Amino acid sequence: MTKRDFFSSGRHPRLFVEAALAKAGRIEANDAQAHYLRHVLRLSSGAGVILFNGKDGEFLANLEFAGKKGAILAIGDRLRDQAAGPDLWLVFAPLKRARLELLVEKATELGVSALCPVLTQHTDNARLRLDRFRAIIIEAAEQCERLTLPDLCEPKKLDALLADWPASRRLILCDESAAAGCGVAPAFLDAVAGLPRGGSWALLVGPEGGFARPELDALRKLPFVTAVGLGPRVLRAETAAIAALVCWQAALGDWRE
Amino acid sequence: MTKRDFFSSGRHPRLFVEAALAKAGRIEANDAQAHYLRHVLRLSSGAGVILFNGKDGEFLANLEFAGKKGAILAIGDRLRDQAAGPDLWLVFAPLKRARLELLVEKATELGVSALCPVLTQHTDNARLRLDRFRAIIIEAAEQCERLTLPDLCEPKKLDALLADWPASRRLILCDESAAAGCGVAPAFLDAVAGLPRGGSWALLVGPEGGFARPELDALRKLPFVTAVGLGPRVLRAETAAIAALVCWQAALGDWRE
Repeated sequence: MTKRDFFSSGRHPRLFVEAALAKAGRIEANDAQAHYLRHVLRLSSGAGVILFNGKDGEFLANLEFAGKKGAILAIGDRLRDQAAGPDLWLVFAPLKRARLELLVEKATELGVSALCPVLTQHTDNARLRLDRFRAIIIEAAEQCERLTLPDLCEPKKLDALLADWPASRRLILCDESAAAGCGVAPAFLDAVAGLPRGGSWALLVGPEGGFARPELDALRKLPFVTAVGLGPRVLRAETAAIAALVCWQAALGDWRE
Repeated sequence: MTKRDFFSSGRHPRLFVEAALAKAGRIEANDAQAHYLRHVLRLSSGAGVILFNGKDGEFLANLEFAGKKGAILAIGDRLRDQAAGPDLWLVFAPLKRARLELLVEKATELGVSALCPVLTQHTDNARLRLDRFRAIIIEAAEQCERLTLPDLCEPKKLDALLADWPASRRLILCDESAAAGCGVAPAFLDAVAGLPRGGSWALLVGPEGGFARPELDALRKLPFVTAVGLGPRVLRAETAAIAALVCWQAALGDWRE
C-alpha cells in the first residue's frame, strides 16, 4: 500500500509478518516494515497496525519505536479468525515481465490459492523472478485484506504438470481459439453452469501466442478439463487470466457467500 | 502490437487508420505506421496488412513502399462488415497514471463503447492525458481485433453526470462497501440476473478511496442504478473496474452470442 492509498483509505496499515501471532505477543518489524511505518507513513508510537501471517488470523497491534530505526509491534485483539479462501490454482504461461507482474498482483487480489507457472510450446524462455513475485504477492495481500498468501509454485512443463494432475481438481481451460473464430468452447458462465461449487479447481491460460494445436487437442480430451471461451475479442494472455479469475469467483467462488 | 507478439501470433499486423476504406482504394500510412511496418516488423513490399477505421469494416491491404520512409496500403477485400459492439460505458474516477493507463487498455480489450472519467469527492486531482489514452486505445483495439474504438469523454463531475443521465441507460454501481463488511449489495451475477440483455448500460467505479457516503446514498436512490458487490476482498479501483467489465460481458454482453 502506498502512502497516498493509506491516507485516503482511512484504514490502519496492514502488514504480513512471518512470526506467529497471538494476543499479548510482541514481534519486531523487519527493516523495510520499520522504515515504512516510521519514515514513509510517519506514524507515532502507539499507532494501530493490522497484522496477519497466513496462519493465525488477523490482529490489531500497536507500534512502539525501538532505537533510531526499529519498530516493535505489540499484539492486541484478534480481529478475524484464520479462514481458508477458495481452492483455486492459476496455471499460467510466463509472459513479459510487466504483464506477468500485473497478473501476479491481480490474481492475488482475486483470491487465487496458488500461482503455478507452466511452460508450453509457445512459452517465451523467461527467467522467472520468484522473489520479486513474492514481494508483489505480499503487497497485494496486505492491500486487499486477504488472510492468506497464495502459494508460488516452481515452473513445470505442461506435459509433466498434466501427468501428475490430481484427478479431483477440475481444470478450466481458457480456449482462445474461440475468439479466433475456429473454436467451439462455450462461454465461461454457460460452460460452468452445471458444475458443483466447492472442491478443488484450476484455471489454465496459455502464452501470448496461444497453445499449440496438439496441446489444445490433448487438453480437451482430459476428463478433468472444461474448455471455456472468453468472448469474441482476442484478449492478451494476462487479460484472459484475470477475466477467468473474475468469472470463476463470480460464478463459483466466494463472491456469492 | 509489439514485434514479438506479431511474429508469435502468425497473424497479419492490424492497423487503425483515419481514412475511409473501400476496396481498390489506396491510403498512405502515417509516419509512425510506416516506420513500424518497414523498420520494426521489416515487412517486404506486398506484405498483407489488416486495416480498420471504426466505420467501414475491416479490409486486407497490401503494403507498397513509397520513397525511403513512406508506405502505401493498397486496399483489397473486405474481411468483416462493420458491426457495433455492446453499448457499455465505463464511468471511472481517475487514478494514478500507470493504473489508469492499464484500465484504459483493459477496458478497450473488454469491449467498452465509451470511457467516461468522473470526478468524485475523493478523486485525486489528476491531469488526464487524453492524447495518451487515445494512443493506448488504438493499440489495444488493433491488438484485440475490435472493429471500433471506444469514445473518450471529457471528465465530468459526478453530480453533473447524474443530472444529465439518460434514464434508459442502466447504471451498475460497483459498491465496494460490501467488501468492507458494511454493505448490502448483492453479488454481481445475482444482482443482474433478472435484468434484460441488450440496450444501454454503464458501469460506475469509484476512486481508490471509494465514494463518499453521501455520494453512495444518493446513487443508491436513483431508479436507473443497480448496486453490485465484487466479493469479499478489497479490490483496487482498476481491478474493480476490470472485474465489473468482465462480469458484464460474461453475463449480459457479447460473450454469449
